[in-house]
Amino acid sequence: MRTVDWVDGGVRLVDQTRLPQDLVWLDVRDVATLVDAIKRLAVRGAPAIGVAGAFGIAIAYSEADPKADRTRFDDLVGDIREARPTAVNLARQVDRVNAVVDQGYDAVLAEAKLIRDEELAASIAMGNRGADLIESLVERRPIRAMTVCNTGGLAAVERGTALAVVQTLHERGILEVVLPLETRPLLQGARLTAWELQQMGAPHELIVDSAGPALLGRGEVDVVLAGADRIALNGDSANKIGTFSLSLGADYAGVPFLIVAPESTIDQNTASGDDIEIEQRDASEVIGFRDTKFAPDNTPCRNPAFDVTPARLITAIVTDTRIIDTSHGETAALRET
Amino acid sequence: MRTVDWVDGGVRLVDQTRLPQDLVWLDVRDVATLVDAIKRLAVRGAPAIGVAGAFGIAIAYSEADPKADRTRFDDLVGDIREARPTAVNLARQVDRVNAVVDQGYDAVLAEAKLIRDEELAASIAMGNRGADLIESLVERRPIRAMTVCNTGGLAAVERGTALAVVQTLHERGILEVVLPLETRPLLQGARLTAWELQQMGAPHELIVDSAGPALLGRGEVDVVLAGADRIALNGDSANKIGTFSLSLGADYAGVPFLIVAPESTIDQNTASGDDIEIEQRDASEVIGFRDTKFAPDNTPCRNPAFDVTPARLITAIVTDTRIIDTSHGETAALRET
Repeated sequence: MRTVDWVDGGVRLVDQTRLPQDLVWLDVRDVATLVDAIKRLAVRGAPAIGVAGAFGIAIAYSEADPKADRTRFDDLVGDIREARPTAVNLARQVDRVNAVVDQGYDAVLAEAKLIRDEELAASIAMGNRGADLIESLVERRPIRAMTVCNTGGLAAVERGTALAVVQTLHERGILEVVLPLETRPLLQGARLTAWELQQMGAPHELIVDSAGPALLGRGEVDVVLAGADRIALNGDSANKIGTFSLSLGADYAGVPFLIVAPESTIDQNTASGDDIEIEQRDASEVIGFRDTKFAPDNTPCRNPAFDVTPARLITAIVTDTRIIDTSHGETAALRET
Repeated sequence: MRTVDWVDGGVRLVDQTRLPQDLVWLDVRDVATLVDAIKRLAVRGAPAIGVAGAFGIAIAYSEADPKADRTRFDDLVGDIREARPTAVNLARQVDRVNAVVDQGYDAVLAEAKLIRDEELAASIAMGNRGADLIESLVERRPIRAMTVCNTGGLAAVERGTALAVVQTLHERGILEVVLPLETRPLLQGARLTAWELQQMGAPHELIVDSAGPALLGRGEVDVVLAGADRIALNGDSANKIGTFSLSLGADYAGVPFLIVAPESTIDQNTASGDDIEIEQRDASEVIGFRDTKFAPDNTPCRNPAFDVTPARLITAIVTDTRIIDTSHGETAALRET
């Protein structure tokens, strides 16, 4: 199941805000709807957002022909590019497609489709590379993994990033259990990851977020796998709030903590985590969930959507083309070839 | 407002499961209802449970006169004593009242009322002692505090334990903000602590649990305050799931991590955290909250209600009678006098 694709002249995507209760497809044919879908997290996960944004340039092209009204076209591209400030992948893929805009609509659409196909291949590569690394780092069989947020096919066309590694371990028959964090405030782990694990038949036990470090501390986990929204040159990695707490737990327990993300997540223009802007989201996400209110109305909240895990707490970064050995000081800079 | 008290021949308590939407008082006059109230967390927080359990012995006395049917009376006492296995305070206060049972009903009720009055005095003492310690440990003014679960008046007749310290800092005019964790799965932080902070007019910003370590890591917090359900002799402290993750974050950030709990929480029969049984609660608490389901039905869950913070990650334990300097190796054993 491709969760983001180009169908009938528009972007078709799963409305992830409706899962796991309803599987609803959105057919998006204008930029405003796409930007809204990205902002309200109907589509989320760095690779999926990147693919949606790439196809978005084709939609922008249909909406405002750049040869006729370049200013309006550029504004639409800017709207897509800025829809999620922390997701470097979005800006990167938008820029990549936008670079061929002078070659016409067909070239734009072809470039966006190429990005989609590359993401599919990347998920398979990350799954294999990550599983190989875990087999070499972890002695215990079968393996008990922990993960946060949603990094599966829903986040990346198919298979995903960190969850692709879990899926590969499961396909290799060496996964005892995976413990997904529910991932407040938007509960992507409970709503999406638990649903995807159920679909793939992988043994899993959902936990509340703060149980992650506790179960690590009690020795009940062999490896932590997380995605990333942006990786700085020094290896510091921004990801969903809660990732940092798992890196502390893994460090305490002495188990590997792996970031799994495509090369496109690495921002060669960001030196360290200190340069990463942390998106602050609305208090309403903390006060309740959907129609259920937890706290009194108008409770003041602080709602950072992401945190930054320092490179020294990351055992390795697994990408679609390489393993970055952060625990031995390797940076995420592109290697000399 | 006394949240647990003896009124008209029974225990009157706030039904904490109904807050913050409704302030509902329960008048409990039989043991089965009391045990149910403790089990479903209508009354919770170690001191409040202890007081409710103490008054429960008077109720048991009315229900089954120990002079007439000691077996049935003892069964009722056992039911109360075992209603929450992790809460040592419950067993301790039940045993203390039960020790005077041969002196008759009036002695039982007087002993239970004495426990209530001692808890009131203890909250005031913990608030002052904790605030004094923070003033000596933290240089920054005003002070930014973080706390987990509910440790306020709702948990302890009046004022509470860790939240009594926050209240004292606020009354002294040196509290910039307190960041309560929402405390999944039962959301005591969002439902109860945010409500209590609103009642006392203390500046606060509610956060999701996994934002706790992240905000500590970013230097946005000066002190962490947590309660305890059971403290082992070596200082290891069992408390609501998520407390351990804050101790890791505080250690990373180099800020004080304080446990605030009455002496009755110290279990002189428990050598270390390894000996503390961790209560596993139902999967339904993780799958959703009230009528809202987050995860697919029948999702397998692991739901440890508590975690154990090792003494070496605790700066100090503040009780109603002393400060235990765990960071310099002091244990929670009673001092020679």
